[in-house]
Amino acid sequence: MNTITMQLVADQYIRMALQEDIHSEDVTTNAVMPEYKLGEVNLICKEDGVIAGLDIFARVFTLLDPATEITFFVKDGDQVKNQDLLAVVKGDIRVLLSGERTALNYLQRMSGIATYTRSVAALLEGSHTRLVDTRKTTPCMRIFEKYAVKVGGGGNHRYNLSDGVLLKDNHIDAAGGVKEAVLAAKAYAPFVRKIEVETENLDMVKEAVEAGADIIMLDNMTPDQMREAIAYIDGRAETECSGNITKENIALIKELGVTYVSSGALTHSAPILDISLKHLKVMD
Amino acid sequence: MNTITMQLVADQYIRMALQEDIHSEDVTTNAVMPEYKLGEVNLICKEDGVIAGLDIFARVFTLLDPATEITFFVKDGDQVKNQDLLAVVKGDIRVLLSGERTALNYLQRMSGIATYTRSVAALLEGSHTRLVDTRKTTPCMRIFEKYAVKVGGGGNHRYNLSDGVLLKDNHIDAAGGVKEAVLAAKAYAPFVRKIEVETENLDMVKEAVEAGADIIMLDNMTPDQMREAIAYIDGRAETECSGNITKENIALIKELGVTYVSSGALTHSAPILDISLKHLKVMD
Amino acid sequence: MNTITMQLVADQYIRMALQEDIHSEDVTTNAVMPEYKLGEVNLICKEDGVIAGLDIFARVFTLLDPATEITFFVKDGDQVKNQDLLAVVKGDIRVLLSGERTALNYLQRMSGIATYTRSVAALLEGSHTRLVDTRKTTPCMRIFEKYAVKVGGGGNHRYNLSDGVLLKDNHIDAAGGVKEAVLAAKAYAPFVRKIEVETENLDMVKEAVEAGADIIMLDNMTPDQMREAIAYIDGRAETECSGNITKENIALIKELGVTYVSSGALTHSAPILDISLKHLKVMD
Amino acid sequence: MNTITMQLVADQYIRMALQEDIHSEDVTTNAVMPEYKLGEVNLICKEDGVIAGLDIFARVFTLLDPATEITFFVKDGDQVKNQDLLAVVKGDIRVLLSGERTALNYLQRMSGIATYTRSVAALLEGSHTRLVDTRKTTPCMRIFEKYAVKVGGGGNHRYNLSDGVLLKDNHIDAAGGVKEAVLAAKAYAPFVRKIEVETENLDMVKEAVEAGADIIMLDNMTPDQMREAIAYIDGRAETECSGNITKENIALIKELGVTYVSSGALTHSAPILDISLKHLKVMD
Amino acid sequence: MNTITMQLVADQYIRMALQEDIHSEDVTTNAVMPEYKLGEVNLICKEDGVIAGLDIFARVFTLLDPATEITFFVKDGDQVKNQDLLAVVKGDIRVLLSGERTALNYLQRMSGIATYTRSVAALLEGSHTRLVDTRKTTPCMRIFEKYAVKVGGGGNHRYNLSDGVLLKDNHIDAAGGVKEAVLAAKAYAPFVRKIEVETENLDMVKEAVEAGADIIMLDNMTPDQMREAIAYIDGRAETECSGNITKENIALIKELGVTYVSSGALTHSAPILDISLKHLKVMD
Amino acid sequence: MNTITMQLVADQYIRMALQEDIHSEDVTTNAVMPEYKLGEVNLICKEDGVIAGLDIFARVFTLLDPATEITFFVKDGDQVKNQDLLAVVKGDIRVLLSGERTALNYLQRMSGIATYTRSVAALLEGSHTRLVDTRKTTPCMRIFEKYAVKVGGGGNHRYNLSDGVLLKDNHIDAAGGVKEAVLAAKAYAPFVRKIEVETENLDMVKEAVEAGADIIMLDNMTPDQMREAIAYIDGRAETECSGNITKENIALIKELGVTYVSSGALTHSAPILDISLKHLKVMD
Repeated sequence: MNTITMQLVADQYIRMALQEDIHSEDVTTNAVMPEYKLGEVNLICKEDGVIAGLDIFARVFTLLDPATEITFFVKDGDQVKNQDLLAVVKGDIRVLLSGERTALNYLQRMSGIATYTRSVAALLEGSHTRLVDTRKTTPCMRIFEKYAVKVGGGGNHRYNLSDGVLLKDNHIDAAGGVKEAVLAAKAYAPFVRKIEVETENLDMVKEAVEAGADIIMLDNMTPDQMREAIAYIDGRAETECSGNITKENIALIKELGVTYVSSGALTHSAPILDISLKHLKVMD
Repeated sequence: MNTITMQLVADQYIRMALQEDIHSEDVTTNAVMPEYKLGEVNLICKEDGVIAGLDIFARVFTLLDPATEITFFVKDGDQVKNQDLLAVVKGDIRVLLSGERTALNYLQRMSGIATYTRSVAALLEGSHTRLVDTRKTTPCMRIFEKYAVKVGGGGNHRYNLSDGVLLKDNHIDAAGGVKEAVLAAKAYAPFVRKIEVETENLDMVKEAVEAGADIIMLDNMTPDQMREAIAYIDGRAETECSGNITKENIALIKELGVTYVSSGALTHSAPILDISLKHLKVMD
Repeated sequence: MNTITMQLVADQYIRMALQEDIHSEDVTTNAVMPEYKLGEVNLICKEDGVIAGLDIFARVFTLLDPATEITFFVKDGDQVKNQDLLAVVKGDIRVLLSGERTALNYLQRMSGIATYTRSVAALLEGSHTRLVDTRKTTPCMRIFEKYAVKVGGGGNHRYNLSDGVLLKDNHIDAAGGVKEAVLAAKAYAPFVRKIEVETENLDMVKEAVEAGADIIMLDNMTPDQMREAIAYIDGRAETECSGNITKENIALIKELGVTYVSSGALTHSAPILDISLKHLKVMD
Repeated sequence: MNTITMQLVADQYIRMALQEDIHSEDVTTNAVMPEYKLGEVNLICKEDGVIAGLDIFARVFTLLDPATEITFFVKDGDQVKNQDLLAVVKGDIRVLLSGERTALNYLQRMSGIATYTRSVAALLEGSHTRLVDTRKTTPCMRIFEKYAVKVGGGGNHRYNLSDGVLLKDNHIDAAGGVKEAVLAAKAYAPFVRKIEVETENLDMVKEAVEAGADIIMLDNMTPDQMREAIAYIDGRAETECSGNITKENIALIKELGVTYVSSGALTHSAPILDISLKHLKVMD
Repeated sequence: MNTITMQLVADQYIRMALQEDIHSEDVTTNAVMPEYKLGEVNLICKEDGVIAGLDIFARVFTLLDPATEITFFVKDGDQVKNQDLLAVVKGDIRVLLSGERTALNYLQRMSGIATYTRSVAALLEGSHTRLVDTRKTTPCMRIFEKYAVKVGGGGNHRYNLSDGVLLKDNHIDAAGGVKEAVLAAKAYAPFVRKIEVETENLDMVKEAVEAGADIIMLDNMTPDQMREAIAYIDGRAETECSGNITKENIALIKELGVTYVSSGALTHSAPILDISLKHLKVMD
Repeated sequence: MNTITMQLVADQYIRMALQEDIHSEDVTTNAVMPEYKLGEVNLICKEDGVIAGLDIFARVFTLLDPATEITFFVKDGDQVKNQDLLAVVKGDIRVLLSGERTALNYLQRMSGIATYTRSVAALLEGSHTRLVDTRKTTPCMRIFEKYAVKVGGGGNHRYNLSDGVLLKDNHIDAAGGVKEAVLAAKAYAPFVRKIEVETENLDMVKEAVEAGADIIMLDNMTPDQMREAIAYIDGRAETECSGNITKENIALIKELGVTYVSSGALTHSAPILDISLKHLKVMD
């Protein structure tokens, strides 16, 4: 993750996570280790997967003590295997102990998302359809989770409500129709935004195309409905398929020619990747 | 969740989550709804489970507009079923639309944890062994996730590094032995803390008992080792079983008489519970 | 300004502005007014212009005391005249005095921007070309200044570096060419972003069109160069004219058929609109 | 600007300004420049003026990356000319690109204020009257704008409502008269504050002198009224002339012997000084 | 304390103090009181003194729950006696219990300062010399402690390093002499500041007078030295006596005619006033 | 104080304390010292006592300028004497002057607490009874004051309401009795907490023992009552004596065999230890 994003965005969350875990002091560590001692510890993978979040893992320790040195043997996006040595962390042994849990909480979750994303994205290989995420992220984790999706080979949908326009049924109703909604959005939103419209049937698709939507979301449609919609659209807008996409049914979508498939599960249902810090040793 | 915890602890995270989703404005909503309109929307369950986090769900909306009214038909800890109407949210339709995703991101995740915790805790029914969580929580989500574990019928282990003492192998090495570590912790930590020692074999268990540990963690032991350890301890300390507890193997533990079983999976691997806001209607 | 934007974005800046002006207390007011007294004061326009920022003006006072009542006789976007009564503010006279300067500092500046924007936008009337702002805003004032541009009849360019893609010469060099840069941006950025490319001559324009840029910026070109570029583009991309646009030269652009004209002067050079609080009276 | 002021006061505003411009990441830069590359860029003046804010300009970049090196060829207060090379910024090319706009937004505005202030102050040369600023600053910009006034040769009036006492008509009414107001202020305010009274006519001036005011503001008086007031005061208090001072009418004031002339225009109406970053080059 | 000061300054400290005491939840209260119950509790004085900080005391509870009602039977500055009923607090019994300690920590300390200040100020009665505080306040408590001094009848010296000028020996050395230092300060500081000079002997006093210092501090001088200095100054500047003023030696100063006596002990050595919350009762 | 506690907890308070003292700039210092000059100053003890808070003292300066060098000749917990040279601080003379007051405000207060604590703890020497603190700390000073108590040889009671369980009379009433309260606490609180019950007479002590309380507080009991209670408890729980413990009466307690004696006076009534910065010299 870019140093600028780290400084301006990620740091504040990481610091809050550390303060969540230490509100006065690490009582256990301070009880038995009153003085600085140099130590090092190994970061070991406990199952196969895709690693993501190494910079965040490192940042937890350097926020506690800038002198901590982290040597990586892999990089974000690498396929890692059970028992692989991923990194060595060297520094004040108290920093290693106090930062361990927070560092792993980030790394395991981000790697879990990257691993799951890659496995789903693999099912779309050979097609022009791209897998993207949603806003169904864990609160205060979006910058980390969307990054992990990208590491796993997925793409990002809009980051938040401010930087993308997606007209849903309620917006369309409020505007008085698809055409009116698209016009209102074009008039109001920064002109650098594409306008996306959520549709549920072919009539709405037609309206959206006529209104000049840039992207048309096909929401909870059957494969046949989608096929028909895509044929109708015929390249006049990009298309996004959305709604309970699973590994089981994604094969059906692959053949349809939809531009994007979005899946909330990438961020809300990916299991963590098991990783741990082992073999801490005090250095003389 | 208690109003005091909400004000002092939860609010700052919820506000950050909202700001994560809206850094300037909700462009789509503002484009088509320039004026206040009263509306209401239903909170519907999409699968069976245990609900948790209703106050947080409500708080998302009242932080955006204190005039928003939320009527609940269930309470935290209730078993809910697919298609149950859980609540009605009534207020400025722009608030309903802008707060929807953040409110659901909290509620789905917390309910997922409560649901999973209850299913695991059920496997311990009939024993005196209690299921507890760990510090393997999502960064910036601990206050919410540990609350959800309790709603699901689990107990809480220490909240963080400051309010509990857990002497692991590295602490013991640093202190020069189990006895020395326990003495150092008793001398240093606030006297209201129990002292817990992590042990890997019977020798360490014996040392821990002699040193006067209040709680002895049996880490990654086989059922036989645990049985032997518990027999040795014989009530002189509480015991905690830890290490990759699953629904499959938890039955073995149930018979051993261990005081607590801790499981990181409660917070890091529970799938979300599917819940959504439906049938938004503008009120005249 | 929408209540949601106010709560999540504007409030933190307004509060900082108030704390900038009161770091311990308003010594003068507290010296002579130890007790609450109800009063009211008139908001009077001192020169002709377009008013913008009334909600912000009001928020300054209600942040100090939620009981303050502000009655407006105009609304954002209205053309106002010298000596017009714009509003009456009623509340604790100490709040009226302590909030006055900060409230006016916002309102005068925002109204100045709206006034200037409208005067420039008027010069484009009759054409399809739209006036838009830039990121040349005052630090910590962007949410207010971009809103004021919209009130004045201008449109917004991207809000910041995160929510728009604009490939400048250095980005193009780094990528190895216009085509490579556009492809890299499409691969990396959320797919809901349009891709804009800055061009300085017709060759770059051609490359940009071929690479599939959504928007082509014609940077510091002569009217003739722009005419040629627009003819070449022929609707295959939107166009933006940029670079030292003034009231004097904007007429030339009007005829060219460019989609957008961006002007930093809207936010960095608009003089304030003179407005003041007058006739404070204590109410019995 | 002193390092202490920077750390304790300026940094928080600069950081907020950067976060205003980057809420997740600089998408464009990150798309085409995934890796660190060393580069340098020139800071060039585009019109004649007085430079102010070089430390702030530099701080924007070092907050993003402390390794950025900025070499200055001028210092705050220097008269600069169109095309002058002011500085070279060297560092990670991504930092140069991401920080550019925020750094220039500060520098242009501060230099604009310094330039304008110097031009007005020049009109008072030869007299003992000093030009000072007001609290009519841009919200969240006071520390920068008041500094720029000083760089331009102006003086500072009170920083805010907490650190100066200025009794206006409403305060005087509330206290029951000029004398009562001055006594109340002397009794209440820290004794290190001078007491200033705003007067509108000679009667008020007399009262203020008798009450022992340290400074008497002559508000919106004609030159003749001011002459009379100053003759009456005769050195028993300092005097401040206030109210729509312009370059056109300031000559009249110069002859009157008033101690200070305050002008809101210095901070609310100074046009920016055009400065830009040019010739970015990647270094091998 | 004024509502404006409360909102802009005090609230952030009070909130931090509450978060210092509750980092996740009030475990004890939440364990036994899961539901809202209305209750009330009496604020009782346990020793004689001067009460100060009642608004802060109340604010602790209303920050936890705005519905809490506090009825006061005394006001800041009142002389209170052992066993006096000072107030009744009525609200959610959980709020009463969770806020108790923080509310009392503020009230006891502020009342202790007011009590001590009044007792010292009483020793100066009959003279024109006024007792004032210093910057020797407890970190993060200045706004509360300086307010308490004023409640106790003392005056305030400068609030901080930004709003007062005090030239000490090191400043004088750096400037090259008393005269140079005063001139530099007058040229640099906002003109609304008085200039104070610290002197240690008569020579420095003479220099200070000649340089036009507004206030001359007589630092650690003997009564005879002070007498001589004051005679020399003869009203040409205000005077401040400073340095280990105690109840024992303050009588000597009273006769000297010094304008101000400053004492750090007011804020750093005042013992607390014992006050407690008693007789909590649940209301039916 | 551990670097981790410093980074995560102490720094935010220290920074706030510095901003409390400098809201715009140190006007005096900046007026006479426009440029960097290297200097050094001595930290001298002005009375005998126990030093505590040296790291905090140093941190004040390094937060202002990381290049400041502090050389200590003593360490926390050392007995120091009047006129001892404790440290030398070397750095930008402006940093030395601007940080002086805040650094001393921390150090004097913390050393005062350590000194007082040691003098009280000395009275318990020879017994097994340990002196501990309470939550009667100064708002926003807890992390510093509880640390100072430990430096002085005292122990810490719970840090706050979240990390300890103490059932008082109101909690017991709410629960319906001592037994019910203890059970509720055991069911609700993290199992790593000891459960403490406050008792006022022997009946309550008996109930507490039967309910399985871990710690029994003997609140405001006479020595005879305490003796009887301790005899009854007979090691089945730890005991804490509380309530207006003074140097005068603590001897009585020493013989009773109580486990802990808690005293609010350690933090709310300890006088400061007089320490100052002297002999600042500019280095060539």
